[in-house]
Amino acid sequence: MQKRQDMDLLRKTLDDIRPLDRKAIGRAQERLDNLLKPRGSLGKLEEIAKQLAGITGVTGARIGKKSIIVMCADNGVTEERVSSYPSKVSTLVAGSMIRGISAVSVLARHAGAEIIVVDMGLSGDVEDGRAINRKLRRGTSNMAKGPSMTREEAVRAVEIGIEIANSAVAAGADILGVGEVGIGNTTTSSAVLHALTGAGLDGIVGRGAGLSDEGLERKKEVIRRSLELNRPDPQDALDVLAKVGGFDLAGLTGCYLAAAAGRVPIVIDGFIAGVAALAASALHPEARSYMLSSHASAEPGAAAVSAGLGLYPILALDMRLGEGTGCALAFHVIEAAVKLLNEMGTFGDVGM
Amino acid sequence: MQKRQDMDLLRKTLDDIRPLDRKAIGRAQERLDNLLKPRGSLGKLEEIAKQLAGITGVTGARIGKKSIIVMCADNGVTEERVSSYPSKVSTLVAGSMIRGISAVSVLARHAGAEIIVVDMGLSGDVEDGRAINRKLRRGTSNMAKGPSMTREEAVRAVEIGIEIANSAVAAGADILGVGEVGIGNTTTSSAVLHALTGAGLDGIVGRGAGLSDEGLERKKEVIRRSLELNRPDPQDALDVLAKVGGFDLAGLTGCYLAAAAGRVPIVIDGFIAGVAALAASALHPEARSYMLSSHASAEPGAAAVSAGLGLYPILALDMRLGEGTGCALAFHVIEAAVKLLNEMGTFGDVGM
Repeated sequence: MQKRQDMDLLRKTLDDIRPLDRKAIGRAQERLDNLLKPRGSLGKLEEIAKQLAGITGVTGARIGKKSIIVMCADNGVTEERVSSYPSKVSTLVAGSMIRGISAVSVLARHAGAEIIVVDMGLSGDVEDGRAINRKLRRGTSNMAKGPSMTREEAVRAVEIGIEIANSAVAAGADILGVGEVGIGNTTTSSAVLHALTGAGLDGIVGRGAGLSDEGLERKKEVIRRSLELNRPDPQDALDVLAKVGGFDLAGLTGCYLAAAAGRVPIVIDGFIAGVAALAASALHPEARSYMLSSHASAEPGAAAVSAGLGLYPILALDMRLGEGTGCALAFHVIEAAVKLLNEMGTFGDVGM
Repeated sequence: MQKRQDMDLLRKTLDDIRPLDRKAIGRAQERLDNLLKPRGSLGKLEEIAKQLAGITGVTGARIGKKSIIVMCADNGVTEERVSSYPSKVSTLVAGSMIRGISAVSVLARHAGAEIIVVDMGLSGDVEDGRAINRKLRRGTSNMAKGPSMTREEAVRAVEIGIEIANSAVAAGADILGVGEVGIGNTTTSSAVLHALTGAGLDGIVGRGAGLSDEGLERKKEVIRRSLELNRPDPQDALDVLAKVGGFDLAGLTGCYLAAAAGRVPIVIDGFIAGVAALAASALHPEARSYMLSSHASAEPGAAAVSAGLGLYPILALDMRLGEGTGCALAFHVIEAAVKLLNEMGTFGDVGM
């Protein structure tokens, strides 16, 4: 019975995703063309303002509450020594978010955003009760020896993401951002990216938190082995997430789907969040219309993600930290786009 | 006597420019390396935090007051029909800034920054008294028929820029941004860029506010003619500014020099402000150490400016509006870099 309800939530969410509101986009374009500036001279800010109109159906909808959902989970594949940090660091970093001293904590405060820290499957326990405990297991299985998780677990993780995002929207969030914490998740993300897009591993596997040359070669070899062993079906994103993904990736995938179904803009962070965005797009192609890309990550696979999504990043900061840090910074720019639409004068206002 | 004092202000400002504080940069690097994140994973945010330490001599100096200086002036070369808007638009746009309905007004409000609107030589008069009137003349001369201004005027315009920036710093600005308004100033900027760097006109002359193909060819031809007629000395930035520049460009040049002398970070806006930054660097090579680049303008010459300065833009928004719009947006990111340095925890804080 539990399982049946779960499948229903994912199916219902996918069913609820609709195209953007073309009329609202047209009204935004008209307003932009009358503003006191050369046509198109606000560049991507104009695209953002139009996209937000299309998402919300309102020209210049105010962005009040901003929420960043951070999915935290550990990955069994770390026993293959694919990361320069031990798994326990995931739980420590998640705890530091609750304490307000992680990078995303600082940036969210600066942006006036809240962060929602979700334990999707950390190996340890976050001491402070302010993390949301949706632990599926204490880390996935080692994908180099078998699937990361069962298909049922993957569906459940996606649906937890949907539930968390739906709650944030119900609590008043006008825009969502996403982030993640999980030692080993550039490894799973590279595997998922390869499985979904066919992008060559040499071009997309990076050093993560700081691997040596030798570590990087090992990481590629482990990913190659995991893909050969598990043979994820490229046409079935849930199969890919289950076999070579992680609880964080699956949870993020659910967030994107919920945002699209709920007509709320959602900001992608870096490489890992971008791979989850690709998975969400594979489950429903229209989901990407509700996404904005915050920054061009320094991870080598980030370019393949951007190309796959057809989205162009707002910031060029060579960051590779995750956590939702890019989203927190991009919120300021996205809010700016809406304010320009709402507050700029027109040529008529100055008598032209 | 007036003239002698003026020359003294420029000379004194150039004399006051010193290299960045290496020790402060070292302290910032040390702190960054202890923060709870993989080394270097904050990318350019780390470079910004270090640069600000080097500029101010303080690790993590708080950014409180933020001021954007907008230099407004008209250009005689517009009589050659190099722009899609008439000159009177400069004065209208400057007036709209005072009224708070221009693009930079909206973005400055959003960023919590003030804007200082300076009439360096508008052809009209800004009605509201809140613009600072430092009008040299009602627009420069037509550079296609002779020099834009005399050398004395160029020096005076640079020194007005120094005075305005010095006043802003004396009033408490912790960071400066610059912007400009001036129909025809992508034409002068392209001419100055070519004169200073030798960059080919085909690669750097753009459509400005929206020229037709025919207008673009005419613009290139006018620039070519102006350069041949005036023969600016590439080794003498003041000669270049006088012969093929504008009052806005010269004023901006002064702002950069004053910021460097006063050890205050200064943010470059788009193409035109970037060309003035090159002129300032030509007058004192160390001046560029005090500059940050806000965004990659869609003007084709912007890449040559970035390459010439060796600075990399923070935002990738394809904007081409000027006014200081990029600075207003970049302030949020620059403040973020300082806050990360000040507010993030260390590995020690989480018991590692």
